[in-house]
Amino acid sequence: MSEKFPTRPIRGMNDLYPRKLRIVNYLIETIKKVADLYCYEEFESPLLEPIEIFAAKSSEELVNEQSFVVEKKKNERLILRPELTPSLARMVAKKSQALKKPIRWFSVPTCYRYERPQRGRSREFKQPNFDILAENSIYADLEIINIAIDILTTLGANEDQFQIFFNNRRFIDSVCELILGIDKKKMPLVYKILDKFQKMDSNEFDKYVLDSFDDEFIIQGIYKLTEANDIEELMSSFENIPPEFFEAKGFNELKQLELLLDESGLSKYCTFSSGIVRGLDYYTGTVFEVFDTGEENRRSIFGGGRYDNLLDLFSEEKLSGVGFGMGILTLRLFLQTYDLIPDNLKEKDYSKTIYIATLKEEVAPYTVQIANKIRNDGYACIIDYRFESIGNQLSKANELGVKISLIIGPNEMNERSITIKNMKTEKQKSIKFENLNKEITALFS
Amino acid sequence: MSEKFPTRPIRGMNDLYPRKLRIVNYLIETIKKVADLYCYEEFESPLLEPIEIFAAKSSEELVNEQSFVVEKKKNERLILRPELTPSLARMVAKKSQALKKPIRWFSVPTCYRYERPQRGRSREFKQPNFDILAENSIYADLEIINIAIDILTTLGANEDQFQIFFNNRRFIDSVCELILGIDKKKMPLVYKILDKFQKMDSNEFDKYVLDSFDDEFIIQGIYKLTEANDIEELMSSFENIPPEFFEAKGFNELKQLELLLDESGLSKYCTFSSGIVRGLDYYTGTVFEVFDTGEENRRSIFGGGRYDNLLDLFSEEKLSGVGFGMGILTLRLFLQTYDLIPDNLKEKDYSKTIYIATLKEEVAPYTVQIANKIRNDGYACIIDYRFESIGNQLSKANELGVKISLIIGPNEMNERSITIKNMKTEKQKSIKFENLNKEITALFS
Repeated sequence: MSEKFPTRPIRGMNDLYPRKLRIVNYLIETIKKVADLYCYEEFESPLLEPIEIFAAKSSEELVNEQSFVVEKKKNERLILRPELTPSLARMVAKKSQALKKPIRWFSVPTCYRYERPQRGRSREFKQPNFDILAENSIYADLEIINIAIDILTTLGANEDQFQIFFNNRRFIDSVCELILGIDKKKMPLVYKILDKFQKMDSNEFDKYVLDSFDDEFIIQGIYKLTEANDIEELMSSFENIPPEFFEAKGFNELKQLELLLDESGLSKYCTFSSGIVRGLDYYTGTVFEVFDTGEENRRSIFGGGRYDNLLDLFSEEKLSGVGFGMGILTLRLFLQTYDLIPDNLKEKDYSKTIYIATLKEEVAPYTVQIANKIRNDGYACIIDYRFESIGNQLSKANELGVKISLIIGPNEMNERSITIKNMKTEKQKSIKFENLNKEITALFS
Repeated sequence: MSEKFPTRPIRGMNDLYPRKLRIVNYLIETIKKVADLYCYEEFESPLLEPIEIFAAKSSEELVNEQSFVVEKKKNERLILRPELTPSLARMVAKKSQALKKPIRWFSVPTCYRYERPQRGRSREFKQPNFDILAENSIYADLEIINIAIDILTTLGANEDQFQIFFNNRRFIDSVCELILGIDKKKMPLVYKILDKFQKMDSNEFDKYVLDSFDDEFIIQGIYKLTEANDIEELMSSFENIPPEFFEAKGFNELKQLELLLDESGLSKYCTFSSGIVRGLDYYTGTVFEVFDTGEENRRSIFGGGRYDNLLDLFSEEKLSGVGFGMGILTLRLFLQTYDLIPDNLKEKDYSKTIYIATLKEEVAPYTVQIANKIRNDGYACIIDYRFESIGNQLSKANELGVKISLIIGPNEMNERSITIKNMKTEKQKSIKFENLNKEITALFS
């Protein structure tokens, strides 16, 4: 007996057996249907990219540590993409002149991150991305949020189960710079603090704020930003707001988006939240994050936002975009919480499949002819090649949930006939080979 | 001006812009439809596997050289799968007891090989796999060949454009051992020689044979095997065939498959060819290879066969299977040769999309309401957020090939009406918001 290899997948990755893949495919097909309704076109980039385009905005060490990297040549380090955006930017930069604007694209990439695996986090994950590029109008931001809502509602979720918390980074910039008087250079720190509010316990968070700022007015302001859910209320909590604030892009974009969400009938799904800033550095305008709002499982499902200068690693062209990336695993866990995964995905559906029971091996070539005819007519069928007793074969058919079985024996072959059995009524009759399609169509209708 | 990164993808990999991805998706969707008709269930395995399960049947050095490998920990080398079969075996071995037999599975993996890129060969390639496992009947071999034929004919190809050349390794074993008297140990060499016949020029091939064998009878026999396309003729070219030969499994399986292909009406797509053995070591019975039969572009498109002991790296369980892997790129090039890629895939089809032209930004919220109504009814629509002149917007709609446009201005918003325009007849009329669905359905039917 030779040594055997383990059958488990490598750490942090999952085998998708048909039962689980049916659910994943259902989610992806739903997402693709919504993409079609919005006329987003699908693209695909190679999995491997030079590590530099991911490291450019952080550091190669950090990217390397958290990623899967291949080194086939000296000084050429290839990364299994941890996210799609740099590849999107590269592909758009390459053909920007030829592409019709605005660009409405989506993709369903598998991404890889070398992180500690945990519930809702795998080292290999599918993360559909939607982006609208070269469209500066706030209506593009609205469209992207609308798509996110449509995906969730098409999957059966409602406004009691999820909320989209939206904000605007330019608005936060204005509050901090024009009202709180925070130095522009310190803004990345402010974003880091706001981003940590959900992730730290309150003692830890208090310490983090006190370590970062010592001006009491600024500290109070930051605390207000962590929890405000009403633009007016937040504004009225500040005194002496300079008039430039109300003329600045941030405040106006945010107010316009809020108004548009209302006028478009989407406001029940959306809540302003000044604490939502999104971790990634490249967001510049609207940002949003979709939360499961259940009391016990309040958590982020996915998010997105507007980024200016998408192409800056690759070209001088200025291009703004807005989009989101939606992890399939988190989405699935969210839907499971609310029992929104259709039950009929648990087993393969054989109700429209025809089961062909063959009595003897000698007649099997005739069975194959029948099967080919059925498939040509567009129906699925399954042939049992074990040639067991008719009782055995029909009980297998019943187990699968088949509605129509065919029974083929020597008589049928000699007469070029078929015995067709309605598995529900248990009635069976003999029909001619030529009439098979008509009979099946009648039984299925 | 800062240094920019190159926009090309890494060597040997391709960006799939929407135009090209539409073709790839068309091929994969067709393949999935055929899988449905045969009741094959889809599965997915992680991209990364321990290198050992691929190296077990060759060598780690060889596998390493031709593959992309990630090393996150000392002594743990992960490979980006170069093919799917070892992962299939691992997943089946893990749950074999729980899986209903026979197992009919397919998958659409992306695989990676570090080879010199050339026409029809990319370092990143999609390769759909079909396998039927735990079904020893020759009818399983027939079913797999039938699937291959159905995929090609569904895509529009016919028997003048492709042929499936089939053979049986056990048959070749019998010919070599029982008729030619070749030592069993030399069989891998015989397979190598037969496999090289198509790939070497004739001088090179002659030298290879002479370097491998010196017995003239054996050499003559091997030459016969390289080119025979008729079982009877091949047999009658040998004298003194021992009776065991005709009783052996190889001859009988091959004859039975030939007969079944004929009786099932598939023989026009299939030709016996004793020179087809398939390079991979794990095939043991039926083997086949699909060729483009065009005079000028005769080449292999894909192939498959039966393998015993699929699980032997992972378990003691004996499991036989038959299947094939079909490279999407080669398939696409084959179809292109015969102009079988539908023309309408070249551009996105907007003929069922509704274009909404908005005259002024002020009425855009009403436009968004209309768009949401249209999508709820299951129709695609596209909104222009540039708010240019009506002429500009409608000519964009015409360019896309849209059949219905809606025109929304202040009057429409005030009256909650919609101006609907048939782009072909150029007729337009005003309708109520509530009647939109009815009007669209009528125009599209």
